[in-house]
Order: sequence, then C-alpha cells, then structure tokens
Amino acid sequence: MSNFKHSFKNDYSEMAHPRVLEALSSIGSRQFTGYGLDEFSFRAIELIKARISKPSADVHFIAGGTHANLLVISSFLRPHEAVIAPDSGHIFVHETGAIEATGHKICTRAGHNGKLSVADIESVVAEHTDEHMVRPRLVYISLSTECGTVYTKTELTAISEYCRKNGLYLYLDGARLGAAINSSVCDLTYANVADLADAFFIGGTKNGALFGEAIVICNDDLTEDFRFLLKQRGGLLAKSSAIGMQFEVLLEDGLYDELACHSNAMAMKMADGIRRLGYDFLCPAETNLIIPVFPADVAERMHQLYDFHDWQKIGDTMAVRLVTSWATPESMVDGFIADLAAI
Amino acid sequence: MSNFKHSFKNDYSEMAHPRVLEALSSIGSRQFTGYGLDEFSFRAIELIKARISKPSADVHFIAGGTHANLLVISSFLRPHEAVIAPDSGHIFVHETGAIEATGHKICTRAGHNGKLSVADIESVVAEHTDEHMVRPRLVYISLSTECGTVYTKTELTAISEYCRKNGLYLYLDGARLGAAINSSVCDLTYANVADLADAFFIGGTKNGALFGEAIVICNDDLTEDFRFLLKQRGGLLAKSSAIGMQFEVLLEDGLYDELACHSNAMAMKMADGIRRLGYDFLCPAETNLIIPVFPADVAERMHQLYDFHDWQKIGDTMAVRLVTSWATPESMVDGFIADLAAI
Amino acid sequence: MSNFKHSFKNDYSEMAHPRVLEALSSIGSRQFTGYGLDEFSFRAIELIKARISKPSADVHFIAGGTHANLLVISSFLRPHEAVIAPDSGHIFVHETGAIEATGHKICTRAGHNGKLSVADIESVVAEHTDEHMVRPRLVYISLSTECGTVYTKTELTAISEYCRKNGLYLYLDGARLGAAINSSVCDLTYANVADLADAFFIGGTKNGALFGEAIVICNDDLTEDFRFLLKQRGGLLAKSSAIGMQFEVLLEDGLYDELACHSNAMAMKMADGIRRLGYDFLCPAETNLIIPVFPADVAERMHQLYDFHDWQKIGDTMAVRLVTSWATPESMVDGFIADLAAI
Amino acid sequence: MSNFKHSFKNDYSEMAHPRVLEALSSIGSRQFTGYGLDEFSFRAIELIKARISKPSADVHFIAGGTHANLLVISSFLRPHEAVIAPDSGHIFVHETGAIEATGHKICTRAGHNGKLSVADIESVVAEHTDEHMVRPRLVYISLSTECGTVYTKTELTAISEYCRKNGLYLYLDGARLGAAINSSVCDLTYANVADLADAFFIGGTKNGALFGEAIVICNDDLTEDFRFLLKQRGGLLAKSSAIGMQFEVLLEDGLYDELACHSNAMAMKMADGIRRLGYDFLCPAETNLIIPVFPADVAERMHQLYDFHDWQKIGDTMAVRLVTSWATPESMVDGFIADLAAI
Repeated sequence: MSNFKHSFKNDYSEMAHPRVLEALSSIGSRQFTGYGLDEFSFRAIELIKARISKPSADVHFIAGGTHANLLVISSFLRPHEAVIAPDSGHIFVHETGAIEATGHKICTRAGHNGKLSVADIESVVAEHTDEHMVRPRLVYISLSTECGTVYTKTELTAISEYCRKNGLYLYLDGARLGAAINSSVCDLTYANVADLADAFFIGGTKNGALFGEAIVICNDDLTEDFRFLLKQRGGLLAKSSAIGMQFEVLLEDGLYDELACHSNAMAMKMADGIRRLGYDFLCPAETNLIIPVFPADVAERMHQLYDFHDWQKIGDTMAVRLVTSWATPESMVDGFIADLAAI
Repeated sequence: MSNFKHSFKNDYSEMAHPRVLEALSSIGSRQFTGYGLDEFSFRAIELIKARISKPSADVHFIAGGTHANLLVISSFLRPHEAVIAPDSGHIFVHETGAIEATGHKICTRAGHNGKLSVADIESVVAEHTDEHMVRPRLVYISLSTECGTVYTKTELTAISEYCRKNGLYLYLDGARLGAAINSSVCDLTYANVADLADAFFIGGTKNGALFGEAIVICNDDLTEDFRFLLKQRGGLLAKSSAIGMQFEVLLEDGLYDELACHSNAMAMKMADGIRRLGYDFLCPAETNLIIPVFPADVAERMHQLYDFHDWQKIGDTMAVRLVTSWATPESMVDGFIADLAAI
Repeated sequence: MSNFKHSFKNDYSEMAHPRVLEALSSIGSRQFTGYGLDEFSFRAIELIKARISKPSADVHFIAGGTHANLLVISSFLRPHEAVIAPDSGHIFVHETGAIEATGHKICTRAGHNGKLSVADIESVVAEHTDEHMVRPRLVYISLSTECGTVYTKTELTAISEYCRKNGLYLYLDGARLGAAINSSVCDLTYANVADLADAFFIGGTKNGALFGEAIVICNDDLTEDFRFLLKQRGGLLAKSSAIGMQFEVLLEDGLYDELACHSNAMAMKMADGIRRLGYDFLCPAETNLIIPVFPADVAERMHQLYDFHDWQKIGDTMAVRLVTSWATPESMVDGFIADLAAI
Repeated sequence: MSNFKHSFKNDYSEMAHPRVLEALSSIGSRQFTGYGLDEFSFRAIELIKARISKPSADVHFIAGGTHANLLVISSFLRPHEAVIAPDSGHIFVHETGAIEATGHKICTRAGHNGKLSVADIESVVAEHTDEHMVRPRLVYISLSTECGTVYTKTELTAISEYCRKNGLYLYLDGARLGAAINSSVCDLTYANVADLADAFFIGGTKNGALFGEAIVICNDDLTEDFRFLLKQRGGLLAKSSAIGMQFEVLLEDGLYDELACHSNAMAMKMADGIRRLGYDFLCPAETNLIIPVFPADVAERMHQLYDFHDWQKIGDTMAVRLVTSWATPESMVDGFIADLAAI
C-alpha cells in the first residue's frame, strides 16, 4: 500500500499479545462468576500481591486508564479536596476534565521533565491557607511520566515522605509502569512503588493486554467500599474476568516485564541512533517514549514516512514524541534510523 | 467436581463466542488507530446503520451497560432535568446510584411486568409543576425489561408519541435488545426501535461478545460532542477497536440474532417444561429471562442443583429468575426440567 | 383593595420581627469581620450551644433551608452513600433534586403522617445488600414534618438508637424546629434533639428572622472542614454576621420560642374552630401547619377569601394546608373560622 | 479601645446603608409572595432593565457572589465544557473550587493587571483541539477585577466580539460593578455591559446592601429554566423579597452609584496621598481597591495601625491591598495618609 506508514504514535496500536488472546480463547463455554468475582481475577490478584510483596493490597481490574484515575481520585477525596499534579499530567491535559467532572480541582506546577519535586508540592500546599481555597489532598504523578522519564527511588521516597508528613495521599498513574520499572535508569521495584504510594495502577492496555488496568490500593484506610464506586462510575464490568485472565497471563511467568523490556530496548536503540546522527532530546530518553528535537524540516520529512506526534515547536525545531511498543519490530526501528540518516 | 452447579444466573457467565475471539486473534501485530477511530469500528458502525435503516445515526462503542446508561443520560440532560423509569429499572435498582451520581433524579412508577405505560409517564409529568421540583425530561425503559418482557410496537409507538409531544427524550436500555427483537411475541424491528427512540444501546456483553455495547443516538439534536463525554467519564478506550471488531463479527452475517434466537429458544423450552409441570409464571415468559413461581421448598431444592437468583418471595412461594444464554446447551435445559420433574 | 386576601400559605410571608430589624439597623457603620467570624455570630453560637446543652457543637449560619440540607448531606456522605427519607420529605419532593444534584440517591418509604418509623428505615437497609446498590448512610427526617406532625421522644430515640447501631447518620431538617419543640404534644427539648441527632438545623426563615438557618453538627466526626463545603457550595456569605446577629436577637431572651408559641397557638385555635364546625383532619393537628379536610365546594369557597395550598384531593373532599406564622393576628384566625361557619 | 484598628480589608465590613435597613423595617407584617415572586423584586427587576436598557433581560436575586458564579456557570455549560479565566480570577483562587465542584474545569492565563486579553483567550482556544481535552465555552472576567482595574469599552468590545465569533459565552463577575462603572477611567455604561456580555451580576453585598446580588442574563438562549437551577443549588430564598427590596432602594434614585462614587473617591484620595509620599502601585489605581507597594517595614508598621491584606511580597517590598467602602469616612483616609507620612 503506497501510503501506508508505520506508527510510532503510541503503545496501544497493536491489538494484544498472542498469549493473551489464546488464554481468552481457551476457556470455551465454561461458566464463571461475573463482576470480578471469578477465579481468573482471584489468581491475578494473588500474582499482583506477590509481585508487590503486599498481601493486604486491594486490587481491582478496570478497562481503561482515564477511568482508573477518576475512580481512584473521586473515591479518596471529599468534595473540597484537590489534586496536586504536574501541568503535563495526563489528568490535567488529556482526560477532558475527568477529575473536575467528579468535582475536584487540580492544582498544577510546571515540574521538570514531567516530574514533580517535593518543592513543587510544598509550594502548592503553602499557597492554600484557608477555607476560601480548596484543600490539596492527593498528589498525582505518573510512572513513567508523560515525557517518558522515571522517578528514582530517592525522588519517590522524598515525595512519599513529604506526603505522609503532610496528610497527602500519593497516587501513581502507572499506564506505563512496566516501562518505568524495567528502565535501566530506574532503581525502583514494584514493591517499592507499593510501599511508597497509597495507590497506583498497573497498566495493561499499553503493555500487551487487549485492554485493562489493575488498580492497587495500598493504604488500608482507602479501600472501603471501592467496589461501590467502581460500579457507580460504570467501571465494574460483568465480564471483568476477561481482564483478570489477561493479567494472569501477563504476570504468571514474567511476560509483562518481558514486553516492557522489549519496548524499552526498541526505544533505546532508536534514541542511540538519533543521538549518533547528532540530534538532541528535550528530556532524558529513559523508557519507551522518547522526545528527540529535530529541525522543523527534518520532522516534516519524517512525518511523510512515519506516523508520530509533534510535541512542541521550539524556534526552528520541533520536539517530536516517538513511542515504541511490545510489538515494535527491530526492523522498524532500523528503518526509521536509516530514513533519518538519509535526510 | 462434586459441588459444581450449572448456572442460570445470567447471560454473561460464558466468555465469548469463538468467532469473536478468532477475529480478535487474527489481527496479529497490525497497527490501527486508537480511541474508536479504527477501520473495524467504522465497518461495525456501517453495519449498525444498515441494520437500523438510519444512515444519520451516531454510534459509539463502550465497555459496559451501566456506563452506557450514565453516559447517555448525563450527556442529554441539564442539571435540573430528571429521568422517568419503572421502579424495576436497572438504573434505579442495580447501578449503585450511577445516574444520581451524575446529578439527576430518577422518578419512578411501578409499571406492569417491568414495563411503563403512557399513563405512568403522564402521571409523573403531571406531578411536576414548577421549579421547586425537577423537570422530567427523559424516559428510560429497557428492551427486553428486567422481567424479561418486551414492549409491542403499539406500546412503544404510544410511548414515543407521548414523549415527542411532551418534550421528553426516549432512551432504551438494550442490554438484551437481541433477545427482545428476536422474541416471538415482539413485533418490533431494529429499525422501529431507531425510529421511535431518541437513543438506545445494542448490548454485546449479554449476547456473545467478550464485552461491549453499541450506543446509538438517533436524534440529531443530541449527538453533539458525545465523544467528549465518553472520554470525560472514562468510557473512551484506547483499544476501542476491540469492541468495534466484535460488533463487526456479530453483525456482518447475522450471528448476533442467531445467538439471541438460541438463547430465547432455550428459555422457551425451559418455560414449556416448567408450565407442563404445573408451575405458573410471575409475568409472561417472552425472552431468555423467565420468572417461574415455585413452592418455596421446590425452589430450595433446585438451588442445591443449579445456580440462579431468587426474585421475590410471595407467601409460601418463591418467584425465581432463570436466564439462558447464547451458550446454554439444550442438555442443560433438559436436565433442569428432568430434575424439576423428579422433585 | 377588593381582591386582597389574607394568606395562610406559609410562615414566611411576613418580612421579619421588628426586634430583628432593629438590631440590624442599630449597628450603624461599625466594622466587623466577614464570613461568619464576627462577634454577633460568635455570641449566637454560644447561645445555641447553651440552649442545646452541647458545648462541643459545631454551628454554622446559612441563608436558606434547601441550602442547609444539601450542604450537610453532601458534606457527610461519600459518593455511593444514600439518604433514607419519607416520600413526603422536602428534599425528595420540593428541592428540585438538590440532593441528587450533589450525587446522592434518596431512598424513600411512605411513612405515616409524614414520619418515618424504625421499621421503615430497617426495610430500606435490608433491601440494600451489595455494591450493585447504593449504601444507605443517612436518615433525613423533619421536625416538625411536612404534615405538621412531631416525633415524640420515644419515637426519635428509637430512630436514633437504630441509626447508631447500624452505622447511619441521623439528620433533622429543623425549618420549623421552633414550632415542633413548642408543640403541646412534643416532649422533646432542644437538648434531646442535639443528643439524638448527628446534625440538624434551627430554622430562622420560618420563625421571625429576615432569613437564615443555623446548622448544628453534634457528631464530632462530621465537623471537619465544614466551612470549606459552605464556601464551595456558595453558602458562606461575606455578611454572615447579618444572620448571626438575628439568631442572637431571637435566642438571647426567648423570642424564638415566643414566636413559635404564638404561631402554634394561632393554628391550634384555628384547628379547634374547624373541628367544632364538624370537619376532620388528614393527620393530627400538632403545630402551626394543619391539614383539615373540607368538602370540595367548601374548600373552593374558602379559596375565594383566603390564600392557602391544596394538599390532596380525596374523593369529593379536599385536604388543605393552613399555615400560621409568628405574625398571624388572632383576628385573622377568628375571621377564617367565622367565614368557614358562614358557608 | 487600645487595640482597635480601622479596616481597609474589604468593602463588606459595614452592615448596610441606613436607607436599605429602613426599607426592610418599613414593611411591618404585610404579607407578600415568597421565592422572588413579590412586588419588590418585580419593581427592582424593572429598575434594572431600565438601567441597562434591556427589557428582555432575565434577572434573578441571590444572596452571594460565589453562589451567583457557580449558578450561572453550571447552568450554561454542558459537562465537558470549560471556563477561561485569568489566574487571579475569584472563581479560580478564592471560591474553594466551587466551579470544579459543579464539574467544570477552569483554564487560566496570567493576563495583565487582573485582565484577560483577546490573545489570552485565543491561546486557550487554540490549545484545545479535540475530545481528549475539555471544550472552552465561557469566558469569565471581573469588572472591576481582583486588582481593582477596569476594562475599557474597547477592550470589552474586543473580547465580546471574539467570544461571539467563536461560540464562547461572556460572563462578568460584577461583585464590584458599581465601582467599575463609576470609575473615572471606565468608559463603559451598564447598558454597554448588558450589550457585550451574555450574563453578569450586579453586586449588592460590596456596595451598601445588607446582602444580595442581581444576576442578569442578557442572552435569551441561556435563560431557560434558570429558576430550577437557583432552587436546586440552594439559591432561591423563601424571603428573596428581602433582596429585591434592597435593590429597589439602591436603584430607584441613584443610591447605588452614589455609594460606589463615594467608595471610589475615598480610594482615589488615598492613592493620591500614597503617590505623593513617593510610593508606587502594583497596577493602576482605578477603583475602590488599590495595591500600593511599600517597603516591607513600612507595610509592617502600617499593619500595627490598620487592618488590611498583604497582596504579594516582591523582594524587599510588600504590595498591599487597600479597599474602601460606601461607608469609609474621609477622616479615616486622611488618618491613614497622615500615619503613613509619619513613618
């Protein structure tokens, strides 16, 4: 097809890993319990608890990430309580006001490379002094971030400690948690994340699942009646088993991390190639989402060959977002680099 | 397994029809566009438009029925506008206050056999006279109903005409639309439904899909910006293509109706057997959900053999809800009747 | 004026008691602190705490009753939690879905004479068994009720005990609390109410104030950050002092109870006259709102002479609602009875 | 009293203008209709329509400004629609997330001197390109602004034209509309405001009323069912007549503008004195709210003598907010300047 283009737009362009689909197909017409109370979900929950070394964790499966974010946040907060987030945060920019639609304000700071620092959080808290203002109550960060960067263990520990001292919940959007944990520059384990955050989700949609995310609530004070919220907001699926089963497949023998490693490796190879060709990056290339900066005309010509998103125009240059996935073939990366070299 | 029981609890106990899963598996690692803008969804939308003879219809795919209901209703109504529903309505009883959580009151009437009449609707409207009360604005009914009954063309036409004359929207919960349309006592076509209602959804979850419902908005005044609402409420999935593809499979050569017919046939056979054994029904057995009334001890003994829900205790008898599905084997129905006869 | 009619429509037809207006006028251009942090409010709060014998009570002033109801309820409940109320409850019938607009469902029972019993409440609780339904969490009752009746100490104690045993909050709408407490058939004191309820409000609007209600939160677990909610919902007035000052005037030397007593006395005189003329009542005449039942033509002719609301058509008779106020002159009551006798 | 301090904190520190209180007191126990359907409100509405030369305007009285803002905005917008506001906007900073609590996001720009420009608005619109983001739909500005500045007729006309061309509603927070219109640097009339905006409110609380604001909806498309919203959000007071009557007094013979002129004159005299003493201002002193910049120690010493709010620390200086009111005596201004000169 003459105008077919490979896509580096995102990590959900391919349907699902074959083993996930095989599992779904293998069930036949066996009957199981609805609404997440099935054996597959129960096994997946045990696998997650083991993976994060937290037997008390409360785990729920849900179809998508925006839904996970609005569910968690609206479950945890009272009406006047607000969220602190980086201004690049997915909930602030790309969820059509989903959090505000549940009644909660998001207070933002610019952050750095998509990451919030303790000082950022502190400055929001300091600004909110009385009942004429919202009460900041939950810190939202992403791992990996919208810029593809990761928090180090030191950084996340500092944020977590600040939150606990100041009565703030810490919630992590883990749509790309696999890519983060498996990044060579990340020294966090899943167990660390579960220790430091009050809640987070493990993203399946962007790492080989057909669809689905696993919400993990680590703070026992926040688990009460969560299934009521799930149901009320439309998130409790009759066939929730179909998500549970996918997580079972992804987690039972390391497939989840394998896929994330492949995705990261493809992006790192791409980043190396781009760097060797003399181009720089808007922020450190650490996971499967990288943001090189090309001269505007180079970006333009690459657009003719590949699908990807422009990130930000900076003078005569264009920072572009390139995302690899669990399914990206190495040849596609090689092709991209070759095409870029040929310009 | 000694304590294994077959289930007549619902029509979503089995995963998905093999052809649906085959289709999902056949895609491999081909890339497609996210968020419902993919070729499968586009083809499924065309199939739906053809099926309902309404080229202008606005179609959206979503993971579950509660989500569909709250999305449609909260998109159509202003804050002070309310819903009229039968008091057996799923949105009133079994969705954890999902509609109220979007800010809207539900005004109920008892109805008859799960169905609202024009007189029911009229009485709610008559009661709401000024700004100290909500303004009823949308009529919610289910086809088939929670009691497994169907509206006739005459009944639905009367409701539709009343709604149009009185500035009310008519919305149909079609979680079991296939069972309704394919019921031998239903003289409605899909095109009739699309003509008479302002919006409805075609249920996939309960008729062979892995998951998914197709929201159809027929009234052009109500389509604006619906995708914004979808996204804001967490309903727009990155891999919405996985739902579109399922509807393509279900609709391209009649599988959807075939499955509904099978499901209905199993229930009708069951109803015949029950009737022959001398038991009566709480309301007419018209689709794949039937409600026979057993003496309490008979119900109790059947519970030891099969999984199903009690519906309502009536004196010394128990009305029980039996649901068949696209996957129910005839032998399971025969077994149930034989076991019932043996009591 | 030939077509002038005296009104028995409600107890807020007259502006405010002269002593209230004098107090507001006496301040001149003295400066005071805004948003309820003024000396008048502080003194009024102390008067209320003394009156209810509850030094720990949390008191807030607000302009109107609907606002008080929605503020309290939305502050106390999580998103999936619901209200139990009589189906005659003001929040269910006459507040334009205000509670649902904050996201909460109201579960109703018919009750008796406007009152809920423990059995009513119990039956709602029993019906709500899992996460597919809302979780009933707060009982809303009115004192006096929409039918002008009062709860006895025994009745209210039973409800309160049931609520505490079952994790339900008890909230009292006290728009006409003065009329209730000062009713000759009511054996409750203000202190009893504060002991038995988790929260209630003392109505000013319907008992001599220009406007204003005093919300009293008795359960310490429910007071946190209430001023944030007040502000967020538009209820925290810059000149909240104007409400505080009115409550100071009403409470400092018994004016509040005096006005309620006058109002009740006028209604009781009216009820006696009506009874003597051979008419009956829909429910016991206990406070300043009474509901006699007249033949339809009698009701019709009295409408030509007086303003009042029809309550309910019952066969050939009409139950009508007659309300007296702090300002109703005895001559107006005498006139009504004379006119009724003359029919 | 030794530690008594005059206050320049705000323009709602004094109760109400004597003529307002006289009017309220003059009514005695005459009866009138509740919920804003009284003769006083009707006359006040006619006075407002005449004042703004807009006979079709829809006018509603409400107790406070935060409530007015959230009512108007939540009545006009669908769930996914958002507000554009300056980041100093009262709704963004000082209303405890009231707008977000109704479900709507606020998109901000820094603006200049508290004012938004067309370019600011344009940049928000340009950024919102699809359904993954909210749809900006209403522009919120204040007249006068939080910084005490006013829009010129040219500026407001440009904004209005941009809004109309781009499907945006223009809403003006007029908590200090009197001060703005009567500012010597403002060339706008009330009629201009009504022509250029879709809705605005005329503030009473900060200009001599006991309490109360008049919401004016100028765009006929936006008036439908507004009273339902008023009631639902707790804003429709039984004794709304008490607000209507105040506006009648304020508007029937120019008192409203007189009070605003006095307030402005006091601030201008103060500004002149401050300027003469060599101090500068953070932004132009145009109405009754001015923001001089003092050396930190000067601000500190003036705090010992007067109550006022710090606005912003800038290096070694402190910008402070000084507000005069309809009741500020000239002697208090003279005293302030004398005390400042003496430092």
